[in-house]
Amino acid sequence: MKKLRRSARLVDMTQHLLASPHKLIPLTFFAEQYGAAKSSISEDLSIIKELFEDEGVGLLKTIAGAAGGVKFIPTISIEKAKDFIQELGHQIQGSERLVPGGYLFMADLLGNPEYLSKIGKIFATIFAESGADIVMTVESKGIPLAYATAHFLNVPVVVVRRYSKGTDGSVVSINYVSGSSKRIQTMSLVRRSMPENSRVLIIDDFMKAGGTARGMMDLLGEFKSVVAGIGVLVDTRYEEERLVDDYVSLLRITEMNVREKDITLELGNFFNKGVESR
Amino acid sequence: MKKLRRSARLVDMTQHLLASPHKLIPLTFFAEQYGAAKSSISEDLSIIKELFEDEGVGLLKTIAGAAGGVKFIPTISIEKAKDFIQELGHQIQGSERLVPGGYLFMADLLGNPEYLSKIGKIFATIFAESGADIVMTVESKGIPLAYATAHFLNVPVVVVRRYSKGTDGSVVSINYVSGSSKRIQTMSLVRRSMPENSRVLIIDDFMKAGGTARGMMDLLGEFKSVVAGIGVLVDTRYEEERLVDDYVSLLRITEMNVREKDITLELGNFFNKGVESR
Repeated sequence: MKKLRRSARLVDMTQHLLASPHKLIPLTFFAEQYGAAKSSISEDLSIIKELFEDEGVGLLKTIAGAAGGVKFIPTISIEKAKDFIQELGHQIQGSERLVPGGYLFMADLLGNPEYLSKIGKIFATIFAESGADIVMTVESKGIPLAYATAHFLNVPVVVVRRYSKGTDGSVVSINYVSGSSKRIQTMSLVRRSMPENSRVLIIDDFMKAGGTARGMMDLLGEFKSVVAGIGVLVDTRYEEERLVDDYVSLLRITEMNVREKDITLELGNFFNKGVESR
Repeated sequence: MKKLRRSARLVDMTQHLLASPHKLIPLTFFAEQYGAAKSSISEDLSIIKELFEDEGVGLLKTIAGAAGGVKFIPTISIEKAKDFIQELGHQIQGSERLVPGGYLFMADLLGNPEYLSKIGKIFATIFAESGADIVMTVESKGIPLAYATAHFLNVPVVVVRRYSKGTDGSVVSINYVSGSSKRIQTMSLVRRSMPENSRVLIIDDFMKAGGTARGMMDLLGEFKSVVAGIGVLVDTRYEEERLVDDYVSLLRITEMNVREKDITLELGNFFNKGVESR
């Protein structure tokens, strides 16, 4: 690459960092790329770092030493996250979104790339230190959320199938009990889609009793892998004991009136740390 | 926002443009944001424009006049696209990816956020001028590709369901004939998930006879909407007449040996313009 002036360097470093979240980039990489001294690169990075922090884009972490470099950690502040999730809650509460079976219609909201990106960034902020090296979800509605989160964590996604169509080769299947309907269901994951000994962040759109999440946790065992965290967009107030204990929700349904197709929401357990999150 | 120096402005404008592809941003927005003269903003933009073009990030289009501004169009060069797709083809050709029914196992590749982002950018480049205001796909494997493409086009996604579980409220369903298996199947789309009079870009991972794409096209009619384009990652050489004429593929399977689980691929019809694309 031709030698760049500071102004052009800043533009290129910014786009490069944004495209490679959670990845350690040695300063020498930039120095060689632009034919610049490492001290100049350091100055550039401090300009970017300050702007990213002021504007809520994320953090730049510099790691000193021979194996050091810079790492971009996308983050959103708790206030901004709260404002956005509250606004989302209002939208969900608005129109008739409760559909038979006590599910929520959210396809339009989850089809909006801007919303999705914000939710993904919130999960990526919450689980930034989880050490997750893979994001797992179950088809179909959790898929966009999982990818949005994985984008900001810069890790791959695996999708657990509910409808095995025999088009995937060798799969590992487990039966699980849907916690709310008490029906036995099957989920499966293609053997070669996930390496053993993974640290897995489970992301889904909705949780009632937690049967699906529990099923995914059980499936992880078959892959000698562990849970790095569980995040759901919406959970429901639930009287009985949930099948999973430790998870984060961003919104919670407190009341459902199936006849009036009406629901009431509050912020999820993530925003009420310290309060019981059963 | 506090008045920023050029260096900080460049960083912020870069991240802002990258986060808002295909969106017209008036120069006055930036000028007011940073307390800078429009002439300074113009100079900033020309620095960003040059770097984006040199580095293959995309184009900055400036539209003059009162209603004018700047628009970031993510693009990838045909050479880079070709190199990447060829490399992807080699990976698909490699290990045993052909699974019963003549389908391809690609979950690991489509789970990789970097690959996905590149494929999405290629589709967004191809369909940049299509005027698409929505991306449509069918669950489940096309979903990540559809979102990756929609991200760069900055439009929403709608997902057609194959497995209606009655959790979505009022849906429009159609029957369609799977072109290769000749079986009658059903697909459905929630009525309120797509506004009428949309221009729809159909994205999917795989096409054989084109029955699924044809089904989505028929479904569009029920929403008084039109096709803005069809893009698939992989199609197959197909002897009979396909159910759709006009579509873009990035890779093509030329030979399948189900017994040996072996396949041969070449570049798709997009890279062979002028050659028949039946």
